[in-house]
Amino acid sequence: MRLAPVLLPALLIATSSHAAPRETRIPEAAIATATQLRAQALADDTGWKIVESLTTEVGPRLAGSEADARAVEWAKAKFKQLGYDKVWTQPVTFPKWERRSEHGAVLGAHAQPLALTALGGSPGGTVEGEVVRFADLASLQAAPDGSLAGKIAFVDYTMPRARDGGGYGMGSRIRGDGPSAAIRKGAVAYLMRSAGTDSHRVPHTGNTHFDAGLKPVPAAALAIPDAEQLARLIALGSTRVRVALDCGWNGEYTSQNVIGEIRGRTKPDEVVVIGGHLDSWDLGTGAIDDAAGVGITMAAGHLIGQLKQAPARTIRVIAYANEERGLYGGKVYAESQAKQIGKHQIIAESDFGAGRIYAFDTSPAEHAKAAAKQIADVLAPLGIEYTPGKGGPGSDAGPSAERGVAWGSLAQDGSDYFDLHHNADDTLDKIDPKALAQNVAAYAVFAYLAANADGDFGSAPKEPAPPKN
Amino acid sequence: MRLAPVLLPALLIATSSHAAPRETRIPEAAIATATQLRAQALADDTGWKIVESLTTEVGPRLAGSEADARAVEWAKAKFKQLGYDKVWTQPVTFPKWERRSEHGAVLGAHAQPLALTALGGSPGGTVEGEVVRFADLASLQAAPDGSLAGKIAFVDYTMPRARDGGGYGMGSRIRGDGPSAAIRKGAVAYLMRSAGTDSHRVPHTGNTHFDAGLKPVPAAALAIPDAEQLARLIALGSTRVRVALDCGWNGEYTSQNVIGEIRGRTKPDEVVVIGGHLDSWDLGTGAIDDAAGVGITMAAGHLIGQLKQAPARTIRVIAYANEERGLYGGKVYAESQAKQIGKHQIIAESDFGAGRIYAFDTSPAEHAKAAAKQIADVLAPLGIEYTPGKGGPGSDAGPSAERGVAWGSLAQDGSDYFDLHHNADDTLDKIDPKALAQNVAAYAVFAYLAANADGDFGSAPKEPAPPKN
Repeated sequence: MRLAPVLLPALLIATSSHAAPRETRIPEAAIATATQLRAQALADDTGWKIVESLTTEVGPRLAGSEADARAVEWAKAKFKQLGYDKVWTQPVTFPKWERRSEHGAVLGAHAQPLALTALGGSPGGTVEGEVVRFADLASLQAAPDGSLAGKIAFVDYTMPRARDGGGYGMGSRIRGDGPSAAIRKGAVAYLMRSAGTDSHRVPHTGNTHFDAGLKPVPAAALAIPDAEQLARLIALGSTRVRVALDCGWNGEYTSQNVIGEIRGRTKPDEVVVIGGHLDSWDLGTGAIDDAAGVGITMAAGHLIGQLKQAPARTIRVIAYANEERGLYGGKVYAESQAKQIGKHQIIAESDFGAGRIYAFDTSPAEHAKAAAKQIADVLAPLGIEYTPGKGGPGSDAGPSAERGVAWGSLAQDGSDYFDLHHNADDTLDKIDPKALAQNVAAYAVFAYLAANADGDFGSAPKEPAPPKN
Repeated sequence: MRLAPVLLPALLIATSSHAAPRETRIPEAAIATATQLRAQALADDTGWKIVESLTTEVGPRLAGSEADARAVEWAKAKFKQLGYDKVWTQPVTFPKWERRSEHGAVLGAHAQPLALTALGGSPGGTVEGEVVRFADLASLQAAPDGSLAGKIAFVDYTMPRARDGGGYGMGSRIRGDGPSAAIRKGAVAYLMRSAGTDSHRVPHTGNTHFDAGLKPVPAAALAIPDAEQLARLIALGSTRVRVALDCGWNGEYTSQNVIGEIRGRTKPDEVVVIGGHLDSWDLGTGAIDDAAGVGITMAAGHLIGQLKQAPARTIRVIAYANEERGLYGGKVYAESQAKQIGKHQIIAESDFGAGRIYAFDTSPAEHAKAAAKQIADVLAPLGIEYTPGKGGPGSDAGPSAERGVAWGSLAQDGSDYFDLHHNADDTLDKIDPKALAQNVAAYAVFAYLAANADGDFGSAPKEPAPPKN
């Protein structure tokens, strides 16, 4: 179907000076195979077994830790065991941050411990001071310069629960930007209510950063019950707290992106890229973040590899190194492929837990919309809605998408994700094997159909955006 | 109504050689006042405020800790503030057990931390050894003597969820008897899956003991996800673990039962006793265990004290010392009242959380059954069923009941109790203020009606049972 010019969206008009590409379509035979693959994946427990294996045998795997190296060896072995045609690695180098111990306590007449955890990137140190509570980041930013001299800033923002994780935008800004804002006001330490939606004594860690020119101070997140307790104590009167963190930077480390490929039959040098990240925070065993993504995509590739006939293009599954401390693996991959953008059919990452997928989208390319709709039609029986214009590339897929790789988005139900995200409760028992299998089915369908399309999804080189903080 | 002899239950026949006491009845005026009290209590937040105050201002209050003394001062001040006529204390002396630090870790190829907590009474020590898993206590007890030499015993029993907490019987036996069983088989340390029903990284502590003649070994409970992880690792092959506990006995401590009284109008020397325990384990803030019991009974007494006319008998509310390490406060109280058994109208303790009360019972005394039924009729609109023969005295009420004090039982819905019991998650946010108010209403009705009865509930001195282990 061709759209009349009057209906063309702005984006297409903007690019209409280029030669109009041929419309991409997916052959009926591929649709039929994908439909079988879908049923097979729903009845298969390979994804679950991969998640169980990684979280049990390796456990927590903070980038740069001893377990990071074990995770890399695990991934290489697992790809081979799953029958991938080619397994290779890419070195990923980054500064290593370590957590050794952490303690918090209310001092004085109401003395009691506080459950807290250092934010990734925080320096160590033991600090005591009066706590000043702010309801949100803007209130802290609005405090007069120097007003927190010798004091501890505490941002007590309550992150709302949402299927799409929408509350995390503010939650992660409070984690990322809060410490620098506190330092500018004179604070000697920074505390935040965890960016989470649970009610357990399991504080949520996650990355922070310090603006150039500022002297970093200890920065930590309180478990949600502890944040509420601290707020109650502050309401009673002046409250002093001790924050004692032993953590910090310790040299450089080189980990690996671990990559497995199911070789394409007719266009082996063109790739559909799916994956998850291999590293995790150290507090839990990284089950939903992101053993699930690794398991979902490894299993999807494996099931495609088990078909009688390989897909036209290569399926490349990446277990990315060090996503958590700043998309290191995703950036290295994107850079390594800078001259291969056009060889990338599409890229997608699973990095939002193990909840059921409820929505599908791809990057906007008018000539690929019919093909996207064909994929959506095979996804629909899985309870997945086609929602053009509502998706975006996953975390490690971002750097590739910025360079022009077309992306796919399979949005997971994240209603419970921030109960577990970056905390000690991120363990295998939180994953529903049936929901995981639905994810595997969706990724298998998506990757297989994209790999067999006649035509592309719009990948084309572009200048990457300037790096963010 | 008199029962025909053929219908008399066995118990009554057994006691029928004694002079038959006059049937106890509650005057209609008292019923009317209790009905008003019930409505007033449901709309009152005194109970909630007491729980908030204790858990916030004192926080965790392990018997013998610095916070124990603060809790005693808090309770004295709170009784006075709530208008109690008399506030007094009873010294309670016990050996002090301290927790300083605790760590667990899997060693070797699958190295990772394990969330565990020392059992109360455990010695300190750092032990490494291969773990041997037992599905239940009987399996451990059936292991050949010496078969665990140099090894760590692990009892991996899954406690079922139940409204009446029925699964805790086995859970607490595994905690209490497991360590000695393990030592007899040669084990160098003892691990158990927490006696809990949650799925969080918050291990459940609780009291253990070591049989005479055995050399104690470090004994700890794993968080439930960690117990499952350890079981998976053991299924993969030989698994060595390090258990490092810094804890143990440290002299004696004298705490206090703190007692508040609403003086009776016509029989001030006769008492209705209600209460909860003031101490808590150290991991949470002791909200459901047992700030709730303290708050419920303090508030009930307070509301009775606010009536225009005091009840006939005295309402005595006890905040017991050191329930957790062995009913020390309850035993001291019972002993102190050994010659006052007949002055005790009835005793009840609230120590099963803050869930709604669903059942009422009293100790069997045929002449008081009609009065019990009268109380039950006023409780019924609160959703409370009269269940004769199904209740029992609460923890600290036990030693008094053993000496012959009649008891009342207001059974709370404990479906969620063992999600929080003795772990770090026992915090204020877990309490539903409306359910708490229902508890206050029930205790107020019960205490007020029992205090105004014409006649008794069967209290009479008897020899206490020999002490249990």
